[in-house]
Amino acid sequence: MIRSHDAGTLRASHAGTTVTLAGWVARRRDHGGVIFVDLRDASGIVQVVFREDDAHALRNEFCVKVVGEVTARPAGNENPELPTGEVEVVASELTVLSEAAPLPIPVDDNVDAGDDIRLRYRYLDLRRSGPSNAIRLRSRANQIAREVLHARNFLEIETPTLTRSTPEGARDFLVPVRLQPGTWYALPQSPQLFKQLLMVAGMERYYQIARCYRDEDFRADRQPEFTQLDIEMSFVTQDDVISLGEELVKALWSELAGFEITTPIPRLTWHDAMARYGSDKPDLRYGVELTDLSDYFRGTEFRVFASASYIGAVVMPGGASQTRRELDGWQDWAKARGARGLAYVVLDAETGEARGPVAKNLSAEHLGGLADAVGAKPGDAVFFAASGNRREAQELLGAARVEIANRAGLVDKDAWAFCWVVDAPMFEPTDDGWTAVHHPFTSPTDEWMDTFETAPGDALAYAYDIVCNGNEIGGGSVRIHRGDVQRRVFDLLGITPDEAEEKFGFLLEAFKFGPPPHGGIAFGWDRVTMLLSGNESIREVIAFPKTRGGFDPLTQAPTPITAQQRLEAGVDAKPKAAPAGTAGAAAPVAPA
Amino acid sequence: MIRSHDAGTLRASHAGTTVTLAGWVARRRDHGGVIFVDLRDASGIVQVVFREDDAHALRNEFCVKVVGEVTARPAGNENPELPTGEVEVVASELTVLSEAAPLPIPVDDNVDAGDDIRLRYRYLDLRRSGPSNAIRLRSRANQIAREVLHARNFLEIETPTLTRSTPEGARDFLVPVRLQPGTWYALPQSPQLFKQLLMVAGMERYYQIARCYRDEDFRADRQPEFTQLDIEMSFVTQDDVISLGEELVKALWSELAGFEITTPIPRLTWHDAMARYGSDKPDLRYGVELTDLSDYFRGTEFRVFASASYIGAVVMPGGASQTRRELDGWQDWAKARGARGLAYVVLDAETGEARGPVAKNLSAEHLGGLADAVGAKPGDAVFFAASGNRREAQELLGAARVEIANRAGLVDKDAWAFCWVVDAPMFEPTDDGWTAVHHPFTSPTDEWMDTFETAPGDALAYAYDIVCNGNEIGGGSVRIHRGDVQRRVFDLLGITPDEAEEKFGFLLEAFKFGPPPHGGIAFGWDRVTMLLSGNESIREVIAFPKTRGGFDPLTQAPTPITAQQRLEAGVDAKPKAAPAGTAGAAAPVAPA
Repeated sequence: MIRSHDAGTLRASHAGTTVTLAGWVARRRDHGGVIFVDLRDASGIVQVVFREDDAHALRNEFCVKVVGEVTARPAGNENPELPTGEVEVVASELTVLSEAAPLPIPVDDNVDAGDDIRLRYRYLDLRRSGPSNAIRLRSRANQIAREVLHARNFLEIETPTLTRSTPEGARDFLVPVRLQPGTWYALPQSPQLFKQLLMVAGMERYYQIARCYRDEDFRADRQPEFTQLDIEMSFVTQDDVISLGEELVKALWSELAGFEITTPIPRLTWHDAMARYGSDKPDLRYGVELTDLSDYFRGTEFRVFASASYIGAVVMPGGASQTRRELDGWQDWAKARGARGLAYVVLDAETGEARGPVAKNLSAEHLGGLADAVGAKPGDAVFFAASGNRREAQELLGAARVEIANRAGLVDKDAWAFCWVVDAPMFEPTDDGWTAVHHPFTSPTDEWMDTFETAPGDALAYAYDIVCNGNEIGGGSVRIHRGDVQRRVFDLLGITPDEAEEKFGFLLEAFKFGPPPHGGIAFGWDRVTMLLSGNESIREVIAFPKTRGGFDPLTQAPTPITAQQRLEAGVDAKPKAAPAGTAGAAAPVAPA
Repeated sequence: MIRSHDAGTLRASHAGTTVTLAGWVARRRDHGGVIFVDLRDASGIVQVVFREDDAHALRNEFCVKVVGEVTARPAGNENPELPTGEVEVVASELTVLSEAAPLPIPVDDNVDAGDDIRLRYRYLDLRRSGPSNAIRLRSRANQIAREVLHARNFLEIETPTLTRSTPEGARDFLVPVRLQPGTWYALPQSPQLFKQLLMVAGMERYYQIARCYRDEDFRADRQPEFTQLDIEMSFVTQDDVISLGEELVKALWSELAGFEITTPIPRLTWHDAMARYGSDKPDLRYGVELTDLSDYFRGTEFRVFASASYIGAVVMPGGASQTRRELDGWQDWAKARGARGLAYVVLDAETGEARGPVAKNLSAEHLGGLADAVGAKPGDAVFFAASGNRREAQELLGAARVEIANRAGLVDKDAWAFCWVVDAPMFEPTDDGWTAVHHPFTSPTDEWMDTFETAPGDALAYAYDIVCNGNEIGGGSVRIHRGDVQRRVFDLLGITPDEAEEKFGFLLEAFKFGPPPHGGIAFGWDRVTMLLSGNESIREVIAFPKTRGGFDPLTQAPTPITAQQRLEAGVDAKPKAAPAGTAGAAAPVAPA
């Protein structure tokens, strides 16, 4: 090593020791004949004192090697803010290892730059302690998760990333195959099928911190490549997977956030979560629960309510003190979400009397009992949603609930609130049938195993999500391992045997050979480490993230390719006939 | 868990315990009223005894749950081959969890099937102990490497896999970008540039078990995606990286192969390795060193030798006893390698007299002193290579050396021989200049730092490979961190500033801001775990490998894509003009 000591580790006990340090000039102060330099390396910062002229040439972020003696700082000059604050290093030798041009962004914890310039100069951005600590925390999170899993006999197994396109769900990223012109690999949206095959293979306990790819339209905070902690287990029930998930988050939050999660983590059914919080990922750091008023308003003459199958409400504590403009703002907010508006009444802070545009449409009885029905106090506001589509109305109220909590300052930013959302519906209706809410391999619960066809909209699955502060951080399911059940699910989804063979032939084939009962979970690893590091964007926990549209400001990827690359990659080749004797049948032929 | 105990863990001390097991029927023997089943799970095998009729329906690889009592086997019936051989489980309850169709390949450790069918039914193949153990060993190897690295403050950091095409070295796999039609990502051949950027970012110690992609023509045992243990360190010298590499292999071989590597591992210079073994990855499990006879044959009238600048030889112990056909076979062997033949003499086992086609062309003196010059004994054969190209001749002799060791049974299959090959040349000549032997960021040694232009063919680099039993298992280098040196290397390689800017602009830009001295190493992780698991193909340590041409017999990937996929992915879109103000300049435009 070029250095003998790490700068951040020097203490009063090192006084008198000659040390060789190597790092960056974080700050330079010129005091006449003496120059003070804060020298930074990965371990921290120490003050170096130069009495020679050669330090005059130093500028911020020069990379230097310094030989010097550790000395106690003069009394009164200690810096209690710095772990090394009791000492300084009196330099006897300086070597400039490399110089730094004027900085396009300051390497300063107290100055923030725009995202684009931060990412373009990410190597400077990462010299700051906040960004650097996020990447360090993520490394430690990997290690903690692996310790939990290896202690429980999980195997880390890599699954392929050049694989077969599965025409399901989101779009695949595609890769032309030069050696088989006209054919393409797909990058995997998740290792789902391969981890199930590993269970058929008898590996029993698999995990992987797996890179996944999804070619989605960019919403806020999406990346074309992302990482999940992917887990699958054989011979388990839902409770076993949930219990493992709890051990993982317990270990992570204990060490990295200093928070002891109480287990078992509370479980909400999906229907309860929707009814009480209007969300399948409820933020439980605050109350503000929804009230179902469908029965309460039965018989109302207010047309909007009378025509709805579901009427719900959510209370904004103190919301009556909002200005007319603020209350109008809620209408705009609702419209931005695609709703027609957000009906409300405010309860007079003195009298408790209900007022507002909706109030005049409601009967005296309905108005009189309202505060009790929704648990509101004088001075509160009550927001309503009414619809023929219960879920739509609940989601609107759920979003209003989050907005209320933010506007009313009800969110304890230091709190951690976890829950499991279980008993998710198996199917949801489409225009011409049913689609799987999770994926078509998700097992119905025991209660619905034999009867899910009789009421597909009510059938429940062994599917579970773990939610932290309103973020879904992981989810999974018990899988179907019985061929007959899988067949019935496909039938309900309108997937013919031929289609099933084409799409998932190799998995169905595998399931003919003694597949074990199995289930798993995947944690959104970017999101988990984002929360643990106290950040609000997953970009902060990715070393080299992309911006909107999948653009990398640092390398300028993606780029056009040359004509020769295009030719060689076989992008425009016609596919040959599919090889004979294929298990998965041939996919349709692309035009040349 | 569906089971209460793992089958392979049952011992005599469990006798009397009622257990619930779950696993697969590995073997079934019907002894009249009693049926014996070997029940297999991930932990091993235990014998289950059924006295009920329902076990008649069991077939191999059915997945079952069994409740029963652990019982000591009757005296004399113990199976010392099996860790559970002192007990059996007397079944009281049987549940078939899933049935198995007739097996396309037997799940039997003693029967081997062809590669294609093994991979097509990989989930059955992996139920066998050999293939399964290779995957388990690999998981443990990851864990051991991570323990070594985390104990030394390395950070695990993920680098992007959707990145910029770098028109260097092997071909990139390309990915069309739907959101920026006409532009493409490339899959990385290694994280090289990103790990160097992480050093500029001050992360100081990085590692990643990284997926890499190389679109090469398939040679034996290549995969389009492969894995490397990728490492980079700042403020280090070559010795620091080598020392870390030794700690890694020491830990791996100690635990996984029961072999204690003596450190420091011997170092050979690249030139010595070529001179003595005719290889830059010499197998040191045996001697059979090359002899340079260029001086010895000075003045010979044998035209083949007289016209060569290098003449070398390698001795085959006992090779004189080969038949004429065997000796002719060596000529075919040499021609298959692209050589014109392999000159030889044999030394008579009795008299030591040199005979053979070459002998009559050599003078009596040259023949008389030959045995001493090459260290041969009567009964040996001596093979020669003579060429105007030293390296070509040395490589031919090096290949002959390996072949000799195999044919003469000189390879101790249980031995482990490691070495470092250091001081590699920086450059090699091309038709019109020089090319980098490693990559253009490899640092010259201190001795050559200021003078490499004066004799590029002689200049040495801080580049090192670690070799195990003739396999290169890892390699790396100290990188150039000084802009002036990098500029001079580019000049020598004929890379203009504009080209450098286009190809590596973002890295060169980063190097303007105080880059630290840094270096690293990458281990070919498939190869390392292949060797550790005693296998001869990297396919054995990959859960779902591909066959030649990148074909996956299991999923039938790659496949044609649909017209809609092609349209959506923007494969045929014309690229827009490159965004303004790019750091890396625009790549050429592809035809639409």
